[in-house]
Amino acid sequence: MLFDYVYAVDMAHTAEHGARKAGTRKRADAERNIAAIITAAADSLARDPDASMTDIAKAAGLGRVTLYAHFPSREDLLRSVLAQTIAESTGIIEAVSPDEGQAAEAFARMIRSCWPLLSRFGSLHAAAQRALPAGEVRRRHDQPMAYVERIIARGRAEGAFRTDLPVEWLVTTVYTLLHAAADEAAAGRLATDAAGEILEKTLLAALKPE
Amino acid sequence: MLFDYVYAVDMAHTAEHGARKAGTRKRADAERNIAAIITAAADSLARDPDASMTDIAKAAGLGRVTLYAHFPSREDLLRSVLAQTIAESTGIIEAVSPDEGQAAEAFARMIRSCWPLLSRFGSLHAAAQRALPAGEVRRRHDQPMAYVERIIARGRAEGAFRTDLPVEWLVTTVYTLLHAAADEAAAGRLATDAAGEILEKTLLAALKPE
Repeated sequence: MLFDYVYAVDMAHTAEHGARKAGTRKRADAERNIAAIITAAADSLARDPDASMTDIAKAAGLGRVTLYAHFPSREDLLRSVLAQTIAESTGIIEAVSPDEGQAAEAFARMIRSCWPLLSRFGSLHAAAQRALPAGEVRRRHDQPMAYVERIIARGRAEGAFRTDLPVEWLVTTVYTLLHAAADEAAAGRLATDAAGEILEKTLLAALKPE
Repeated sequence: MLFDYVYAVDMAHTAEHGARKAGTRKRADAERNIAAIITAAADSLARDPDASMTDIAKAAGLGRVTLYAHFPSREDLLRSVLAQTIAESTGIIEAVSPDEGQAAEAFARMIRSCWPLLSRFGSLHAAAQRALPAGEVRRRHDQPMAYVERIIARGRAEGAFRTDLPVEWLVTTVYTLLHAAADEAAAGRLATDAAGEILEKTLLAALKPE
């Protein structure tokens, strides 16, 4: 009896341990697949804003069934890709201390540090604009744009930036031209290595007092 | 016999005349319906970039069958709306003699004259960007943008506009900010009556030599 009991407990323990191990492995597989899908989606959409779910599954080296198990629609996938790339951009902005030093210099530092990432995302922004409901893509940029708005407000207080136009419009100007440059570079109409400086010059000119 | 012959010819003539009259009426109806659809589509999409074919048919006071008879897809309809609104914009640009006088003044004149139309189209540009293949919307603006490019080139030759940035990028800046302002006004984030002047100031600052 005792032996039976010990054996039963032992077997149950082993089974539970096995199931836990299998569960952990399954979760690890799922996480690896999700990461591979998001990376492949970002790369594919950066080159072609119309890249399909089939294109993306192929680029991730996975089947369509696996892709759809994690992302039921192209819209869901685009939301996850956008969340990740915007989080990356926000991290880069935070790394260059946007709230320190002269506003004009902090602004230039921010544009220069963001551009390599932005240019790598190419037509991803255009893809998101096309796939997600109107206004959503801009709303999802609220966090990085809050840094832009703070730098502009600081530059206005310092007398380095113009105060005759609404600050919201100046933020829109920055947001719009950053993504337009990425689109132009993706389409081969703007040299990627020159675009960072071109953007910086254009935006500082638009922000300067008259 | 002669009577029969004359009668037959007369009857045939009448029938042909009747058919011709019916054909003319049918064509006139079709043209009236197409015009009503394009106007209703422009208005609906200016307010809501996601307006559906059903919304547009309702706004035009026509059935979906009639709508689809003229425009087999939303994409086809958007192309026609875009063609008409771009032609209207080009007409307005031509009316203010963009190739005459000082470039900076001609440029300001062009922006001021285009803005009321652009602001009326609200989110139509965003709707077209979402519905049509990547790059098509910009390509369809080639004609009005050729005027913008000519004014910028003239301003550079006059020393009024900057020469340190590629002219294509300056055209992109103008194109992008014009439509961003229309989007912002449509979303209620920019006052429509102030936006013309705001746009003019932003764009002239971006074009000015350093």
